[in-house]
Amino acid sequence: MTPVLNRLAVATGRVVWFTGLSGAGKSTLAQALRDELAARGAAVELLDGDAVREHLSRGLGFTREDRDTNIRRIAFVAGLLARHGVTVLVSAISPYRETRREVLATLPNPSEVFVDAPLAVVAERDVKGLYRRALAGEIPHFTGISDPYEAPETPDLHLRTDQLSVEEGVRRLLVHLGYSA
Amino acid sequence: MTPVLNRLAVATGRVVWFTGLSGAGKSTLAQALRDELAARGAAVELLDGDAVREHLSRGLGFTREDRDTNIRRIAFVAGLLARHGVTVLVSAISPYRETRREVLATLPNPSEVFVDAPLAVVAERDVKGLYRRALAGEIPHFTGISDPYEAPETPDLHLRTDQLSVEEGVRRLLVHLGYSA
Repeated sequence: MTPVLNRLAVATGRVVWFTGLSGAGKSTLAQALRDELAARGAAVELLDGDAVREHLSRGLGFTREDRDTNIRRIAFVAGLLARHGVTVLVSAISPYRETRREVLATLPNPSEVFVDAPLAVVAERDVKGLYRRALAGEIPHFTGISDPYEAPETPDLHLRTDQLSVEEGVRRLLVHLGYSA
Repeated sequence: MTPVLNRLAVATGRVVWFTGLSGAGKSTLAQALRDELAARGAAVELLDGDAVREHLSRGLGFTREDRDTNIRRIAFVAGLLARHGVTVLVSAISPYRETRREVLATLPNPSEVFVDAPLAVVAERDVKGLYRRALAGEIPHFTGISDPYEAPETPDLHLRTDQLSVEEGVRRLLVHLGYSA
């Protein structure tokens, strides 16, 4: 019975919203946190912006309106899951401060996590080769280059991924969520 | 602890998919079943086609392609919830047999429930006044009038709402789901 009781002890749903530039490390941190929470018996789900876009928003582009629609859809799904006790991790650039504020206000126990690395660092990492293309003008509406990124002013957690290891980031997330690290 | 243990006893997620003409009684039955399951302590969620369309598919129309996209989005969300132990009730016209077959095959413990009443009966009921308008040619792509409805050939449950009360329908649903009625 112990795993079940552990799970019940953290059965209140919540949403942890990772925002930041492409390549800042949102998905890496979210995946590592998901694995850690799952190992501890929590009900956890990761909604990754790119994957969810494919399922819920194919055909939408990257104008502000289309990005906001995608974010609201992710939030709708996150809310349904959290209502049933799931810890939902959302990894999405979600560049607009007002839109994040609006959707987080609708969610149970929301946390805004700013996954932060300087533009110069993520453009240098360029994991997916997108910054090179964006800087060459090949990708319109690319956040940080040709589209704005509005950093959180008062995030619940601010993780500088150019200064912290993934392990340290996960440790801070666990502490923030009330787990022993 | 008793309610918690009861809930754990039925914690396997599943999806009950109500298909049928507009006005056949899908939402009425799904709402009554939801209330009954919730009263028994089950984790249950109702995804109503019209409501979900507003959240996930605004801008989509009623062509076959757009309807199918909407159905796939509902199924994606239903699958996420069911994976976390929720009994998900989907109420959606979902007129195309092949699309229902395709999405139900992706879902855990799916049941296809055919909520059936003759077109003459639902057009006569005309709860939302839509059949009158569709018959007057004012609504293109109206299922049963100007768009096809492909009835399930081998539904898991077939409820004739012109012959059964809501209470009897719920009783049969409960039995199908393995509950005492």
